[in-house]
Amino acid sequence: MITTKGYAAQSAGADLAEWSFERREVGPHDVQFDILFCGVCHSDLHQIRDDWFPGIYPMVPGHEIVGRIVKVGDQVTKFKVGELAGTGCMVDSCGKCHNCKDGLEQYCDHGNIQTYNATNHYTDGMPTYGGYSKTIVVKEDFVLRVQEGQPLANVAPLLCAGITTYSPLRHWKVGKGHKLAVLGLGGLGHMAVKFGVAFGAEVTVLSTSPAKEADAKKLGAHNFLLTSDKAQFKAAQNTFDFILDTVSAPHDIAAYMSLLRTNGTHICVGVPPEPAKIPPFALIGGRKSVAGSMIGGLPETQEMLDFCAANNIVSDVEVIDIKDIATAYERMLKGDVRYRFVIDMATL
Amino acid sequence: MITTKGYAAQSAGADLAEWSFERREVGPHDVQFDILFCGVCHSDLHQIRDDWFPGIYPMVPGHEIVGRIVKVGDQVTKFKVGELAGTGCMVDSCGKCHNCKDGLEQYCDHGNIQTYNATNHYTDGMPTYGGYSKTIVVKEDFVLRVQEGQPLANVAPLLCAGITTYSPLRHWKVGKGHKLAVLGLGGLGHMAVKFGVAFGAEVTVLSTSPAKEADAKKLGAHNFLLTSDKAQFKAAQNTFDFILDTVSAPHDIAAYMSLLRTNGTHICVGVPPEPAKIPPFALIGGRKSVAGSMIGGLPETQEMLDFCAANNIVSDVEVIDIKDIATAYERMLKGDVRYRFVIDMATL
Repeated sequence: MITTKGYAAQSAGADLAEWSFERREVGPHDVQFDILFCGVCHSDLHQIRDDWFPGIYPMVPGHEIVGRIVKVGDQVTKFKVGELAGTGCMVDSCGKCHNCKDGLEQYCDHGNIQTYNATNHYTDGMPTYGGYSKTIVVKEDFVLRVQEGQPLANVAPLLCAGITTYSPLRHWKVGKGHKLAVLGLGGLGHMAVKFGVAFGAEVTVLSTSPAKEADAKKLGAHNFLLTSDKAQFKAAQNTFDFILDTVSAPHDIAAYMSLLRTNGTHICVGVPPEPAKIPPFALIGGRKSVAGSMIGGLPETQEMLDFCAANNIVSDVEVIDIKDIATAYERMLKGDVRYRFVIDMATL
Repeated sequence: MITTKGYAAQSAGADLAEWSFERREVGPHDVQFDILFCGVCHSDLHQIRDDWFPGIYPMVPGHEIVGRIVKVGDQVTKFKVGELAGTGCMVDSCGKCHNCKDGLEQYCDHGNIQTYNATNHYTDGMPTYGGYSKTIVVKEDFVLRVQEGQPLANVAPLLCAGITTYSPLRHWKVGKGHKLAVLGLGGLGHMAVKFGVAFGAEVTVLSTSPAKEADAKKLGAHNFLLTSDKAQFKAAQNTFDFILDTVSAPHDIAAYMSLLRTNGTHICVGVPPEPAKIPPFALIGGRKSVAGSMIGGLPETQEMLDFCAANNIVSDVEVIDIKDIATAYERMLKGDVRYRFVIDMATL
């Protein structure tokens, strides 16, 4: 076993603190990489608080992981020691179902294995521990190639916030000639703006806060719609082809759907705590859809990383010392981050 | 004015009874046709009961109308006296918005004009009266061509039940290689089965009633899923590409969505009285969509009628005397009709 250390919650709701634990030895198909940076996702906080389901403790969060390879198994063909590597939200899946065969491991019929807060029922049945740690061992198929020459702290959030917004925009072929509204301007939303602009769409940020207008424009958004302004909201009825909804707090999806034009699609990538309530006329009056999308599969995540490297797209981040994680969580809860905290793992 | 008679509700909830009223004179772009058959849609009952919104009284229901042309305006080019004609749910729209220009008059930005229970704000501001009557005057652009040699009573329901199911199946390109589930086996559902089969999909009828299995197979469905059977329901998880949901009673859409495979779409064409409640994981766990579709535009309605004529597709109906309309409504409420009542207008 490989002894390492990380930051862990010892029980639900506990503060994170340094913890020494063991990773499995590098197997024939495994890659071990030392973690340089790990992004801080809102779902980390949800999980150490058992917001969604009872967690597995001690829990080491973190699924936006970038580092440098220190060891590879003897069957590994795609990676070499010394190269950069990344891992996102998954570290395994069945590999046999139609979704896995289609490169949609996130929708694996038998369940993908999350990077932390899961037990790997495909292998040793042991808990998985995430990226708030010094080193990690991951099956080669779930390791992503990261190109040199990029600011690595800014690359880390692409592994979750990036792919979560890139994937639906690609799936629904959002691009030239489309009007795209982005709802929520946080870690996910700011990446949605960058990708929407890069794909050629006309991008409008929807927000209840006038203060976000300058931020939206700085990120490249073409327009800003202050949704609390009734006149603005009314004038924007029936105008958008797509709304990419990154909001995880409760909100009235049906009201936003009135902004969609005929055949428009409201795409949810956030996970609000309550079901969406959709009146039938919000759907049938304009052949509209409400859809959802969850991260992205391995081939598409690699495609996204390569697209970002080629187009100089990275996340806007605030790099933090791991000792400041509690403060970062507090600020994240208030939406006080532009737009992602990333832990410099040298501070551990 | 043209004096005619029909069956009308004089106020919300009142029984229908014979009523004499006037149609406008045939204008230069109008077609007048004497009504031979008119289908009985569940929405007729909803509207004479003010279930959806306060109605306009006296109300003459009926929007599945087939008849023979008796007069055409002097600017009419597409129709001649003596030809068959049909009219569905709409008799006018703005004609100028992008939806109208795209042949999607049902989604007209300025509102389409329903065949009855509406006032035509594009023309004379007068109330519209539907097909439970002897004759009707309709703008040429909203008159459909009906081919000779078909059983006309069985053609009438195509104007609403037919196009309402044909349109979404065409829009989402349902066909060979797709597994289609049809939820609800009434006026809409039985047409959905016929179209799904005709388009090459593998069609499964979903029902809580074992008695529907024989009916489903008789209509051409390949499979039947008894949704009240937990084992059957579980075995069908993640199997359908599309669910065409024709149910207008409250039902748990999210539960049915578990039957959809990755990228599956749940298409609502019914209008339940309450909003659908969709938990976020029902959408994002499998990149699923909930969509809605409303009747169809004029070009597609004509396409559907021509497709049906070419492929010997009609509705299964029970022809009734107009004096029996109250009994027909009672039976319809109990689901006791296979599959559409159609009024023989010779009985008026």
